[in-house]
Amino acid sequence: MGSGAFALVLTLALAACVIPAERKCLLSGSWRSDTGCRMVVSVLGKDGSFSGSYLPGPAARDPKILSSPLEGSQQDAGLVSQPTFSFTVHWQLQDLETARMTAFLGQCYVGSNGEETLHTLWLMREATESPAEDWKATWIGTSVFTRIK
Amino acid sequence: MGSGAFALVLTLALAACVIPAERKCLLSGSWRSDTGCRMVVSVLGKDGSFSGSYLPGPAARDPKILSSPLEGSQQDAGLVSQPTFSFTVHWQLQDLETARMTAFLGQCYVGSNGEETLHTLWLMREATESPAEDWKATWIGTSVFTRIK
Amino acid sequence: MGSGAFALVLTLALAACVIPAERKCLLSGSWRSDTGCRMVVSVLGKDGSFSGSYLPGPAARDPKILSSPLEGSQQDAGLVSQPTFSFTVHWQLQDLETARMTAFLGQCYVGSNGEETLHTLWLMREATESPAEDWKATWIGTSVFTRIK
Amino acid sequence: MGSGAFALVLTLALAACVIPAERKCLLSGSWRSDTGCRMVVSVLGKDGSFSGSYLPGPAARDPKILSSPLEGSQQDAGLVSQPTFSFTVHWQLQDLETARMTAFLGQCYVGSNGEETLHTLWLMREATESPAEDWKATWIGTSVFTRIK
Repeated sequence: MGSGAFALVLTLALAACVIPAERKCLLSGSWRSDTGCRMVVSVLGKDGSFSGSYLPGPAARDPKILSSPLEGSQQDAGLVSQPTFSFTVHWQLQDLETARMTAFLGQCYVGSNGEETLHTLWLMREATESPAEDWKATWIGTSVFTRIK
Repeated sequence: MGSGAFALVLTLALAACVIPAERKCLLSGSWRSDTGCRMVVSVLGKDGSFSGSYLPGPAARDPKILSSPLEGSQQDAGLVSQPTFSFTVHWQLQDLETARMTAFLGQCYVGSNGEETLHTLWLMREATESPAEDWKATWIGTSVFTRIK
Repeated sequence: MGSGAFALVLTLALAACVIPAERKCLLSGSWRSDTGCRMVVSVLGKDGSFSGSYLPGPAARDPKILSSPLEGSQQDAGLVSQPTFSFTVHWQLQDLETARMTAFLGQCYVGSNGEETLHTLWLMREATESPAEDWKATWIGTSVFTRIK
Repeated sequence: MGSGAFALVLTLALAACVIPAERKCLLSGSWRSDTGCRMVVSVLGKDGSFSGSYLPGPAARDPKILSSPLEGSQQDAGLVSQPTFSFTVHWQLQDLETARMTAFLGQCYVGSNGEETLHTLWLMREATESPAEDWKATWIGTSVFTRIK
């Protein structure tokens, strides 16, 4: 085999290694939602768990919302390139009597240009006094996050 | 103050301590859902975090579903008697190629008889290939859990 | 054919007519939800369409909610005994500036005793000023209805 | 009052009439969703009711889905410029044994450039055999529609 052919094989081998690595998605880092919120996610644990903080942006016009802690986990990114994940935000509100939590469930998609987007659906609820009032406790919506570079 | 009056005060003081304790709700223990599933929740961490396992019951007729791990947290039960909570089940399926997660969000209500019930809404999703297929990735439903004694 | 055999055939024929008729579900009539609301549904049109009214019960403690019109349709009950259906309630609120709609989606199940229950999931939304506020416009929940006899 | 002042008043009066008319949203017409589906909505009835058809686009890769009828109603566009609305699609599937319905709930927003967008959340369900299987009957998602010109 000539050196030209060898170089070609080497290039293909490297490409085969490099491309999957480029396409993998880890939630670690900083993200911005289509509703103007920001989210900072810590380095993942070996089991895919993570923590972080959720910060309302200019679109979140409610001054009672402070930076709030989040906890979650993602599917093993060593096995799949576009992992599913979930995380929960425990809202820190200036009004201490209101308890509010949001559970996000989603998947990280990697575009052909390598750009990652997080597609999520979420449930948000406030505490109520009794099961009779439970029916109006829960909101639902979507958020799409892109990485802040 | 006579000993009778003292005993009365002591009884009232004890009652004042005991009643709130009876009405408090901790997720630790074993629960059964209205759809026939069982859930075992570990002792809570100081921060309200917990782990456990989710087991399909006779109503879950899908033999591909095995006992699956869950992770979550509840609101501080020292502050509120009917805490909100969230947890995520990472489904262990015999079909290893399918990834499925469910995020539960709910509140523990304590009835006048002291009986605890967990009212939850959940989102369940499977991984899809691309954002174009994301629209049909997510199911929604409710579950009500009662404690197994 | 002897009269015994004739009676048997007649009995089977009647049974064949009667059993499906007993098990069929039509939404026409009066229903009560597990959250204490009442609903009156008109006789169905030939295409399965119906109208009616939705009345908050004692559990709906919001005095601003009046009896409200509903419109919907069910799957052809001539083809299936447990039809799916949807209907929308346009809430009549004393506060005329608030617009609120609820879309119900569900299925009518017929128990072994012939009792009908309507299992529904619903979305409720209020109007907001702009897309930036749309994220918190929608609630979600479930209702189970049984027939008022 | 001089003719200049009269012209000014006339101009203001016309502007007052014209601007709300430009910003009003009626669902009548053709729309394309962010998931590639198309929707044609008939002229509205006086009560805001409408009918139409829903057509899967290239992104709806399921060849079993045909053009399907829809029925719905919107809030009085004479009262509000950004009305809420709901509509239901009764899916026509080549597999006649499967019954599927989708209930959309949303609001029409009018941008500063006069462009209308429909923001919706939807529930989709298939018929199941019994309440024990009802838990996995319902999907949830969002669609954003823009007008096809």
